Amino acid sequence: MKIEAVDFYYLSIPQVLDVGDGSQDALLVRVRAGDYEGWGECEASPLVSMASWNCPMSHSACKPVSASVLGQKLDDVDDLHRVNRLVRAQSLDLLQADHTLSGVDIALWDLLARAKGAPVFRLLGYQKSFPKLAYASQLFGDDPSITFQRACDVRKAGFRAAKFGWGPYGLGTSQEDADQVEAAREGLGQDGILLVDVGTVWYEDVARAEQRIATLKKCRVGWLEEPFVSGAFKAYHRLAQLAPEVPMAGGEGCHTVHQAINMIDYAGLGYIQIDTGRVGGITSAKQVADYADAKGVRFVNHTFTTHLALSASLQPYAGLEKHDICEYPFAPSSLGRDFTTTKLLPDSQGWVNVPSLPGLGVVPDTAALKPYLQEVEILVGGKTVFRSSTFDPMGGSAPSTGALL
Amino acid sequence: MKIEAVDFYYLSIPQVLDVGDGSQDALLVRVRAGDYEGWGECEASPLVSMASWNCPMSHSACKPVSASVLGQKLDDVDDLHRVNRLVRAQSLDLLQADHTLSGVDIALWDLLARAKGAPVFRLLGYQKSFPKLAYASQLFGDDPSITFQRACDVRKAGFRAAKFGWGPYGLGTSQEDADQVEAAREGLGQDGILLVDVGTVWYEDVARAEQRIATLKKCRVGWLEEPFVSGAFKAYHRLAQLAPEVPMAGGEGCHTVHQAINMIDYAGLGYIQIDTGRVGGITSAKQVADYADAKGVRFVNHTFTTHLALSASLQPYAGLEKHDICEYPFAPSSLGRDFTTTKLLPDSQGWVNVPSLPGLGVVPDTAALKPYLQEVEILVGGKTVFRSSTFDPMGGSAPSTGALL
Repeated sequence: MKIEAVDFYYLSIPQVLDVGDGSQDALLVRVRAGDYEGWGECEASPLVSMASWNCPMSHSACKPVSASVLGQKLDDVDDLHRVNRLVRAQSLDLLQADHTLSGVDIALWDLLARAKGAPVFRLLGYQKSFPKLAYASQLFGDDPSITFQRACDVRKAGFRAAKFGWGPYGLGTSQEDADQVEAAREGLGQDGILLVDVGTVWYEDVARAEQRIATLKKCRVGWLEEPFVSGAFKAYHRLAQLAPEVPMAGGEGCHTVHQAINMIDYAGLGYIQIDTGRVGGITSAKQVADYADAKGVRFVNHTFTTHLALSASLQPYAGLEKHDICEYPFAPSSLGRDFTTTKLLPDSQGWVNVPSLPGLGVVPDTAALKPYLQEVEILVGGKTVFRSSTFDPMGGSAPSTGALL
Repeated sequence: MKIEAVDFYYLSIPQVLDVGDGSQDALLVRVRAGDYEGWGECEASPLVSMASWNCPMSHSACKPVSASVLGQKLDDVDDLHRVNRLVRAQSLDLLQADHTLSGVDIALWDLLARAKGAPVFRLLGYQKSFPKLAYASQLFGDDPSITFQRACDVRKAGFRAAKFGWGPYGLGTSQEDADQVEAAREGLGQDGILLVDVGTVWYEDVARAEQRIATLKKCRVGWLEEPFVSGAFKAYHRLAQLAPEVPMAGGEGCHTVHQAINMIDYAGLGYIQIDTGRVGGITSAKQVADYADAKGVRFVNHTFTTHLALSASLQPYAGLEKHDICEYPFAPSSLGRDFTTTKLLPDSQGWVNVPSLPGLGVVPDTAALKPYLQEVEILVGGKTVFRSSTFDPMGGSAPSTGALL
């Protein structure tokens, strides 16, 4: 097979709010090769990733992503690795390319696995998949009573683990933050797994983090996520030494395998969190999972959006039994909910099974997504270099593949 | 003052070639505040950075760059730091934002320094600037005889240092690579400073690098640049141990301060190379220069394009006397040559002085640039969210500032 077409669909709720909910928009990718199609998603900023697909070349190491994808041979897993490396090399100086590649790479795995009649994790070399304990991912409420209520809701919905993050946490006083974490623990119950996400707001200020440690220990917080920006290895490492009872988690911002490897090697992490839609897709996420496993750091997905993204994010560590927890989008926007008809539902004990169907095992519900579709057109020198696709069954009258325009 | 307007100009030669010449296009940025204007440049991929300026918000940490720039107070250096931090926080998940911020940040420093009547380096806290020994940056020829000729040209033009990179180097046999380096040394003369740039083509393969060490030592190569991708810290560190006589250089791909700090801390570098147009502008480059100086690693600019970019790239280490070498675009495209009327010319001994005029001391020659201007328009849902500016003296009838559309 050859990669014949790649289509991009920018989906958004009517009014995106200034809150930390990453499910308000999405960039859906479809690839076609031979008689098959595959679907993936890029995180984040759909318009910018679309622009990188077919932007004019700046020089030999700053080519549009399409230059390394369209027309490439696609018969086996080696081809997926080859295309991934080619994009990295030919778009070395195009920063956004890693996010764009991610969605394309996911769609290519989906396609190839469907063509082989196997789930993606099987193509990744895993004989079987192991269920993951779903943690419900939630935003802190504007005050502790809302956080408490959200934690109660999570428990009632059958989850045994929850993460609270963003919102006001980390921005106010230590006492305000303590009240939030205690409210979450109270609502979740004493036996639940409670995780806390700081969303990088302390930048690299270890002292601010240190002031919160006592409460995090008291509330038996299972990890402290992104107290600092991704690159602040020394701050992470110092805090890990100061608070060995509270493992550090981070890595969602990594957009290359090496960035994740370096966090594992130098930041003292207990958990490496990988967004398959940013790091370079399933190809890159699997490399990180293998490295984490070898180094005794636990791999965990970063997924706040759709069940297509969720399936893609589970495949890279599906066969790693010890890495047994997963982020689960608990309260996504209507777009996140409508994205797929098939859902990856936790069982009565809160475990999620990786789909055993061919490919990713879930497909976007294009009929339901039509109302969310945002038309995009990009012109350079009066000429259209990119136009978004429609959900027309024939692939749309306006393919994203610049070569065809 | 308040930041009132930011305009973007996509400039390109008529036909961009598939070669490693980064001067074939450019993204010029103009900012306006009060009675002043300032100019900067973003590296790389003009269209994609333009898209990130006014893309629709995805969520609270994935806003367009404009959301953190337009309307901001601009009276002193603290404001520049504040705006830089604000962009990083509010565009945390927008990968391309760091490149876009870089050009805007440079233009803001230019503007503020002009308003204060001082060169940028003075605002950075340097009492005086020290000249830098220019190394002429060149591509390896397709065969050694072309490389030899280019090295002769460099010497005849009065340069005492030259770097050769990209082209066929690193892709063929060790012997072919040795012939290239020996040709460069012969053409440059025995007393010249010879530097070699591998352009990351060995990815992280230390063995391939090791096979070239003997020739690099024999030819007294002053540094080996980017043998590996930026994140491959262990490969860099290992090679630095294997070949202490050949210092490692790298860092041009860094798009945050922390990435550069981590390279300094973990990769065993002798030189950290910073592209002010990528790392987050002058604000971020200065932070890296300070850190490098404290750690005994030499800071050097990465500039392959224009003399506006060259001035911007010299300011961050203008006052650091020991850091005394600079990359100098020797054979840029016609666009690179036409960009400014004022040039930063090396003196008879090959030294370049940082301009002492207010701001960056060079301004784009907008009349000469008009033929290179590429019109850009981006539509989402049928509505224009971005339109490139013209060189109309009044700022153009079509400002890039989405807020005004």
